[in-house]
Amino acid sequence: MLKIKIDINCDLGESYGAFKVGNDAEIMPHITSANIACGYHAGDPTIMAKTIGLAKKNEVAVGAHPGFPDLLGFGRREMQLTSEEIRDYTVYQVSGLHGFAKAAGLVLQHVKPHGALYNMAVKDERIAKPIVEAARRVDENLIVIASPKSALARVAIKAGLRVACEVFADRAYNSDGGLVPRTQPNSVIHEPQKVVRRAVRMVLERTVPAADGKVLDLSDVHTICVHGDTINAVKLAASLKKALVKAGVEVKPLASFV
Amino acid sequence: MLKIKIDINCDLGESYGAFKVGNDAEIMPHITSANIACGYHAGDPTIMAKTIGLAKKNEVAVGAHPGFPDLLGFGRREMQLTSEEIRDYTVYQVSGLHGFAKAAGLVLQHVKPHGALYNMAVKDERIAKPIVEAARRVDENLIVIASPKSALARVAIKAGLRVACEVFADRAYNSDGGLVPRTQPNSVIHEPQKVVRRAVRMVLERTVPAADGKVLDLSDVHTICVHGDTINAVKLAASLKKALVKAGVEVKPLASFV
Amino acid sequence: MLKIKIDINCDLGESYGAFKVGNDAEIMPHITSANIACGYHAGDPTIMAKTIGLAKKNEVAVGAHPGFPDLLGFGRREMQLTSEEIRDYTVYQVSGLHGFAKAAGLVLQHVKPHGALYNMAVKDERIAKPIVEAARRVDENLIVIASPKSALARVAIKAGLRVACEVFADRAYNSDGGLVPRTQPNSVIHEPQKVVRRAVRMVLERTVPAADGKVLDLSDVHTICVHGDTINAVKLAASLKKALVKAGVEVKPLASFV
Amino acid sequence: MLKIKIDINCDLGESYGAFKVGNDAEIMPHITSANIACGYHAGDPTIMAKTIGLAKKNEVAVGAHPGFPDLLGFGRREMQLTSEEIRDYTVYQVSGLHGFAKAAGLVLQHVKPHGALYNMAVKDERIAKPIVEAARRVDENLIVIASPKSALARVAIKAGLRVACEVFADRAYNSDGGLVPRTQPNSVIHEPQKVVRRAVRMVLERTVPAADGKVLDLSDVHTICVHGDTINAVKLAASLKKALVKAGVEVKPLASFV
Repeated sequence: MLKIKIDINCDLGESYGAFKVGNDAEIMPHITSANIACGYHAGDPTIMAKTIGLAKKNEVAVGAHPGFPDLLGFGRREMQLTSEEIRDYTVYQVSGLHGFAKAAGLVLQHVKPHGALYNMAVKDERIAKPIVEAARRVDENLIVIASPKSALARVAIKAGLRVACEVFADRAYNSDGGLVPRTQPNSVIHEPQKVVRRAVRMVLERTVPAADGKVLDLSDVHTICVHGDTINAVKLAASLKKALVKAGVEVKPLASFV
Repeated sequence: MLKIKIDINCDLGESYGAFKVGNDAEIMPHITSANIACGYHAGDPTIMAKTIGLAKKNEVAVGAHPGFPDLLGFGRREMQLTSEEIRDYTVYQVSGLHGFAKAAGLVLQHVKPHGALYNMAVKDERIAKPIVEAARRVDENLIVIASPKSALARVAIKAGLRVACEVFADRAYNSDGGLVPRTQPNSVIHEPQKVVRRAVRMVLERTVPAADGKVLDLSDVHTICVHGDTINAVKLAASLKKALVKAGVEVKPLASFV
Repeated sequence: MLKIKIDINCDLGESYGAFKVGNDAEIMPHITSANIACGYHAGDPTIMAKTIGLAKKNEVAVGAHPGFPDLLGFGRREMQLTSEEIRDYTVYQVSGLHGFAKAAGLVLQHVKPHGALYNMAVKDERIAKPIVEAARRVDENLIVIASPKSALARVAIKAGLRVACEVFADRAYNSDGGLVPRTQPNSVIHEPQKVVRRAVRMVLERTVPAADGKVLDLSDVHTICVHGDTINAVKLAASLKKALVKAGVEVKPLASFV
Repeated sequence: MLKIKIDINCDLGESYGAFKVGNDAEIMPHITSANIACGYHAGDPTIMAKTIGLAKKNEVAVGAHPGFPDLLGFGRREMQLTSEEIRDYTVYQVSGLHGFAKAAGLVLQHVKPHGALYNMAVKDERIAKPIVEAARRVDENLIVIASPKSALARVAIKAGLRVACEVFADRAYNSDGGLVPRTQPNSVIHEPQKVVRRAVRMVLERTVPAADGKVLDLSDVHTICVHGDTINAVKLAASLKKALVKAGVEVKPLASFV
């Protein structure tokens, strides 16, 4: 019998020089794909090299996590750029990380835009297109991580790239499939047990109940996003992986099954 | 009969956003190798893409021109970095440019450090080593452009990389082979005719008279560096190429003969 | 008889390190107020000090020209910031310039936001408020330069600050008082003679014909904005000042009559 | 009887956007002077405003902590700048902070250079001079915090500025009065009790034993520097202040007694 497969992805390498962010070394053993910051919203070359090294040691697949050129805002603030600028900034960041992967004998597995760039690309094909075009130019084998049914997923499929759809186990969903904004009550689920149960259901049953009770279809989900910089991040990731394995799910990097 | 071969290299792509530097489009037809800024001391992804495009159109070979992370100082100020930092910053910049070359169907030909990083690497093996190591990690076929007899040249050769030695046709040399510092009188030769005559002699006779009259050996010179941002840059480069061709020299990119 | 008074303002000090922008020394004699970049979209401390020195020598009044923290985009790209961020970034930039003015024995006369920050503040009180609040905190005697009838002008007046309204002599206006976007034909007037005639009429008659022929009221205009980085900038500014003086207008800094 | 007076200073406001550094709110109650980062090596306008607010609430005196323009290196890497650049970068940073102090109704008390800029200014008058000149230009009442007998102290005194000499209670000293470099064993004292005892002795007896046993004279010491970003920083600062007060020392900001 074929086992159900899932990937666990996490944003990593988001320190910058002496500014430390996250618990990269602790979270690595519990994930299968690392989205590594590329120097624009966070990350610097030394951090990139170290994060690639950590990923290699833990047999975690590596991907680029490009963002807006806004270190001061951690890439979380919308910027109005031209398509050309988005494309070229993405090529630069993905290529920059590519070099560290190559130097370590690894292959870049995926691209996942960061913060405001991700949020804009999910909704707007004009933002998604230059990101996908950049990924295609650097390496047409790159998988694009995107929200299910998003503009980013549509554009990537149309461009002939593989797409991995992601869900957030600790976030409430609206009935249209979008996330309940963080500004609203109950948008984030804090109890680790609940998050883990929810994630296992998402993977096994391929559904999730929306905030209004409607059951959403998750038939095309390939990866669960966990956060690395919250208080219980490490514990949660560890519990999640353990629970999925216990439920008979095969937890492994995207490239092996997408 | 085998023709004498020489390359002409020039620093290009040193604009940044709305800040315009140099006459890239005008100088391109008269050179054979472009040292393209990679975003640290100058250059940005959009400029990098455009400069690669210009080089392709003019059949000019492309190389990376990495510098210190000091946009405010244009990479001309010494910074005390660790070997690891120099190596990783260089990997990042060279890789970043590599992506644009690949996207344009070009192969990176060479690496030439910029400004203070170049000056420090010429004198100090501890600075040269991580630069060479970075080049080797990104692509072991990269040629390193360096001053003849410099620490950078020695380290690159020892690491098994090809080295191209460069001369400056418009700069006076000391009898030890070093450049007369710009702060001294007669350090720069301004008359275009004199620069061109000097360059042709350098290439044909493989010698140059030092400031004190001593004749310096240039037997291992592969490329002449011209400046792109001076007043007569375009005219000078055009005259230089024309004079070399007229003298029977084959002016072509490094990779074909180094 | 009381003479009509007008100020001529220009954006200056927009170089950055080795990146040179504009003809500051040439344009200074022909203007009365300098909007000096403060290091975020352009300008650096050394440029700020030099520009303040040039202004002092030419008896030109100095003001701060704060922009978005986007050197790569020259402050021309919209960024979604919080009110607190806009306020604090403006305090920092205005204060930074204030120190150089003080060191030179000058008093800051005004604040004029730059690029996208200006355009957003003209239309949206939520953007204008934190800018005005910042100006007030640094020095409540600062004059705010704004478009007539703009959100920025309204907010500044309400906060008790003096406001100077500006017009552009080389730009076409819509009948609602807004500028014809640069993307449309005939948005910019290129003939110097026409620009000068238009400016003199604006000042003497306090009207300007909109693109559709409607005559706009300019009764509250205090300053004409000229550009410093166009080809004929210096000539145009010189002609403009001369024509205004010849028409009997007193051309002097804002602080003396606003 | 006149009580002995001492100040406790600490580097604060060294976060940057989403990158959090230190425990500013916890350490504030236990110090009397805050050295606030000004945006070059760390700190941003929003952090500066918040740190000034925290200082005001805790009745802590505020000073500027200018550094090299090297966020990536946290200002800890030597850069070769001209005197003019050091002076102007310092004016900009001190002025920038000045605006936030003024907006909060506070007066800037002091300037203390950060990291590599401090270390260079301690040894070299050519680095110290432009820093002191910058402080004098922004506000001639600023106190300069410097190592005893340093080039920085000498230059500041000669320029007519007040100088506060600082000691480090947790660092070993060489017999020439310099700090034992961190790269050597026993350069940092980790036991809180030992640090506190040492500090009390420094203040009461105005001496400290050097690493080789020689007793160093500390007759001109005005302030003890504590670190805010180490594990026991808060506890140590609290114990230090308590022990000094218990020993009859008056712990208060520099400006009241220098």
